[in-house]
Amino acid sequence: MQAAPRTRILILGGGFAGVSAAMRLRALLRRDPAVEIHLVSNENYFVFQPLLPEVVACRIEPTHIVNPIRQLCRGVVVTNAEVQRIDLAARTVELVGADARRVQTLGYDQLVIALGLTMDLSRIPGMREHSLPIKNLGDAFHLRNHVLQRLEEADVEPDERQRRRLLTFVAVGGGFSGVETGAELNDMVKGVLRFFPRAAATGHRLILVHSQPRILNELRPELADFARRKLEQRGVEVLVETRVRECTAGGVILGDGREIEAATVVCTVGNSPHPVITGSALPQERGRVLVDECMRVQGLSGVWAVGDSALLPDVKRGGYCPPTAQYATRQGKRVAENIHAALRGGKARPFVFGGLGQLAIVGHQCGVAQVMGLMISGRLAWFLWRTVYFMKLPGVRAKIRVGIDWALDVFFPRDIAMLDVRRTERLGRAHYKAGEVIIRQGEIGDRFYIIESGEVEVVRTGPDGAEQRLAARKAGESFGEVALLRGMPRTATVRCLTPVDVITFSREDFRTLVGSSEVFRVVFEQQMQAMSPPAGEPQPPQISNIASP
Amino acid sequence: MQAAPRTRILILGGGFAGVSAAMRLRALLRRDPAVEIHLVSNENYFVFQPLLPEVVACRIEPTHIVNPIRQLCRGVVVTNAEVQRIDLAARTVELVGADARRVQTLGYDQLVIALGLTMDLSRIPGMREHSLPIKNLGDAFHLRNHVLQRLEEADVEPDERQRRRLLTFVAVGGGFSGVETGAELNDMVKGVLRFFPRAAATGHRLILVHSQPRILNELRPELADFARRKLEQRGVEVLVETRVRECTAGGVILGDGREIEAATVVCTVGNSPHPVITGSALPQERGRVLVDECMRVQGLSGVWAVGDSALLPDVKRGGYCPPTAQYATRQGKRVAENIHAALRGGKARPFVFGGLGQLAIVGHQCGVAQVMGLMISGRLAWFLWRTVYFMKLPGVRAKIRVGIDWALDVFFPRDIAMLDVRRTERLGRAHYKAGEVIIRQGEIGDRFYIIESGEVEVVRTGPDGAEQRLAARKAGESFGEVALLRGMPRTATVRCLTPVDVITFSREDFRTLVGSSEVFRVVFEQQMQAMSPPAGEPQPPQISNIASP
Repeated sequence: MQAAPRTRILILGGGFAGVSAAMRLRALLRRDPAVEIHLVSNENYFVFQPLLPEVVACRIEPTHIVNPIRQLCRGVVVTNAEVQRIDLAARTVELVGADARRVQTLGYDQLVIALGLTMDLSRIPGMREHSLPIKNLGDAFHLRNHVLQRLEEADVEPDERQRRRLLTFVAVGGGFSGVETGAELNDMVKGVLRFFPRAAATGHRLILVHSQPRILNELRPELADFARRKLEQRGVEVLVETRVRECTAGGVILGDGREIEAATVVCTVGNSPHPVITGSALPQERGRVLVDECMRVQGLSGVWAVGDSALLPDVKRGGYCPPTAQYATRQGKRVAENIHAALRGGKARPFVFGGLGQLAIVGHQCGVAQVMGLMISGRLAWFLWRTVYFMKLPGVRAKIRVGIDWALDVFFPRDIAMLDVRRTERLGRAHYKAGEVIIRQGEIGDRFYIIESGEVEVVRTGPDGAEQRLAARKAGESFGEVALLRGMPRTATVRCLTPVDVITFSREDFRTLVGSSEVFRVVFEQQMQAMSPPAGEPQPPQISNIASP
Repeated sequence: MQAAPRTRILILGGGFAGVSAAMRLRALLRRDPAVEIHLVSNENYFVFQPLLPEVVACRIEPTHIVNPIRQLCRGVVVTNAEVQRIDLAARTVELVGADARRVQTLGYDQLVIALGLTMDLSRIPGMREHSLPIKNLGDAFHLRNHVLQRLEEADVEPDERQRRRLLTFVAVGGGFSGVETGAELNDMVKGVLRFFPRAAATGHRLILVHSQPRILNELRPELADFARRKLEQRGVEVLVETRVRECTAGGVILGDGREIEAATVVCTVGNSPHPVITGSALPQERGRVLVDECMRVQGLSGVWAVGDSALLPDVKRGGYCPPTAQYATRQGKRVAENIHAALRGGKARPFVFGGLGQLAIVGHQCGVAQVMGLMISGRLAWFLWRTVYFMKLPGVRAKIRVGIDWALDVFFPRDIAMLDVRRTERLGRAHYKAGEVIIRQGEIGDRFYIIESGEVEVVRTGPDGAEQRLAARKAGESFGEVALLRGMPRTATVRCLTPVDVITFSREDFRTLVGSSEVFRVVFEQQMQAMSPPAGEPQPPQISNIASP
């Protein structure tokens, strides 16, 4: 993987922009063995985000709106890894694969940055801990099961107030995602409550909290107001010009101090730039990469940025292109054509797109739409919404499945199976045989270990290759903290002297503990004296990125 | 929920036996408002286990073989909770709901024990930590993603030996489950490897390890041998008369000391009795409840046992009924009829069933079958297998979905999307507002807390209702250990004096830590002195059950 024998077009990101760029490039360069199209994605599938709310609402099965990227982009080299760092000078990208043991470096001739945005819930106290985002498939899957779990609990909860809390749902954010998720959740709970007789007696509440005076403010006022009326007709309580000040285990506290006791808080606000971009030397504004109308990054030849992570001038309407799937998909296609042109000595063409319009679902069989100047609402808009997304859904299999889900949805009650995928224990555990190596010098440190039984030795291999024994550790003792605390590769190798059972913590967990518990901190600072690394040990910056993804 | 106004038939367990009993009872008693049919299940869905191997093999979507019990058994009261204890004297059952805060007691007039078996992987060192069981949907889901993850890793792994390890799969156990899962996994990896070009070059291995001289030894020798030949033709390496001595992070060590480096070990052995049964006064043998041929538990009126958790005489062929879905389903029906008869003053009838035969899949479009004396093998057996299970699959929706998956399977490559549902952080975190109660005196202790920021007070309410302040805790300190270490309800209430951020551990995790790290034990023992509970505090036995489910 290290050396690229041929021209490598490296695409970072497996979202709308990245995948459409890869597919288009594949089509344009099909007959060119001298070019490698290489896509890096932290998930091995492409998820069709616009349908996430329907997944949450149990209308579509979670697995039906995903497409394995390897199958979607045949002939494209796909690497399933997390991007760590972009080195513009060396024209390389640093990746950490799923096993997280090693940083891999990948060179590029052409680079397409399509990393999208990330979620930052840390701005509102408690939001990160207690609210459920709805950004990727895992989120939707989790939210779906979380809601069903609350219904199960409410059904056996004797205390009236607790039951009401379990049946209160808050959606934070009145944009498309917030409105659609709120509307779908509301319909869903209404629809399935009858299967929970003891909970049904209490009934549910769904509250949509929005900071602006008007929800869906990307739409025309009339349409936005229609949407709001429809939501309210269906029982959704809409609070506008209201901020969430704090989110707790018990519910949310609003800006004016009012409290809403709720066991479910869905958060659709808090989009924030990708750390790899903010951590890079790329020209940027508020974390979005500055590009010209051809999606070229100024001053960097062969570097392009598209989708939500790019700040691309909107040639047609002025300002910048909105961060929507519509735009991202087309930008991906166009950047592919521009790269193809660049390779063939052709001329890059600007991205010109006015948008086809906007659609939102505000409840079952009811939507609002603004298409080519027209305003549509009600069932027609809903139908349009489904038609458009059905057509956009990539892959025949996905189309068939979603189509069938929609058909079944008409004839059968929703699927309220609460899929228990919490198989793994919270704490990692591992068993090693005598002589086996648990951590290896030079690897990225990604775990911390406490020995349950057995004994290990800590050894370091010097530059001369000679092994030096630093320490031994027995049951009740721990190891692996140096790399985690100092943010550097493993400074030593740990080998089992006997069969060994260990408990393991992820880097993230370990740092949290040390950062918050005096007991931990004291203990580990002591231990570290015993095996502090040689001076001048490299301290790769990317480690810290890994620690807080 | 406490008092039963009408005759309550309580069914424990949502597997084949429990659900079929509930459905049959529902049909028999439809017009009788004086009888409550109440089913307790720890999952809110019924999973059709025979198809789990196909889920692992990405032929069927995980969600398609499940049926929400509430929808399957309309009119039956369903409680989604874990059974803690059966009190035969008081004729009550103790449950802990999903929220795990409170023990609920449910009385019964008729009790049907259909708890099935559990998995005990602790007998082989390292098996619990490193092998993947395939018992419920979560397992199948997890195994499927685990395998895809290994392929993704192998595709970016530069080291040849590591890559070979990532591509080596071991299935432990040569029974139906082991053979079918092994065969399906082998076909699947073979089928999708082409999407992982760098891994494909290395190729994969699948090794089936079985302790007996012959796999599938429930079948006739000729048929079992045929199955083995077929497996081997498809590249599965079958090791018979071989035990796994140890399982490590690196692979498995066999009885004769040989080692197999493998990143995936599937375990289909280790069935063990249900703790609630072994912990009860029920007459039993090796953890299975002794019943007469009418499924009555001797000496206990109105108590019945069916399915895998019952030791039921096989009237037709002598010995005891085998623990299979075929038998469980019919036992459920018959026990329903016997209970109905008992309520109506009728006579109980014995369970008489000879079994219809046995089917196993040994690879795509190849199976072995033993049906009513006939032996069938190859494609016909495979077709028979699918037909039988398709017909047995409960619910029209499930039938449609599985049917479509099978149809798609013919025309499309398998769905290799690796569903990332690991949304939650390993460590729990929580934010509370000033004045909020974090733990409440008298509740079951299910979590341990470390304070990240803020301050709390620990208070106890005496019998007179007066509050006594025991202690205050600030950032870096912890609380909640007493209930967890002493296995008793919360002995005090913890209230926030300021907004508070905490890190939380589950009971399981906390006990593991304290059980293994001296540092922890010392610290907590000290803390506990400060707030040891009043003498004569009840020590409910069920807590320990919760701790080790």
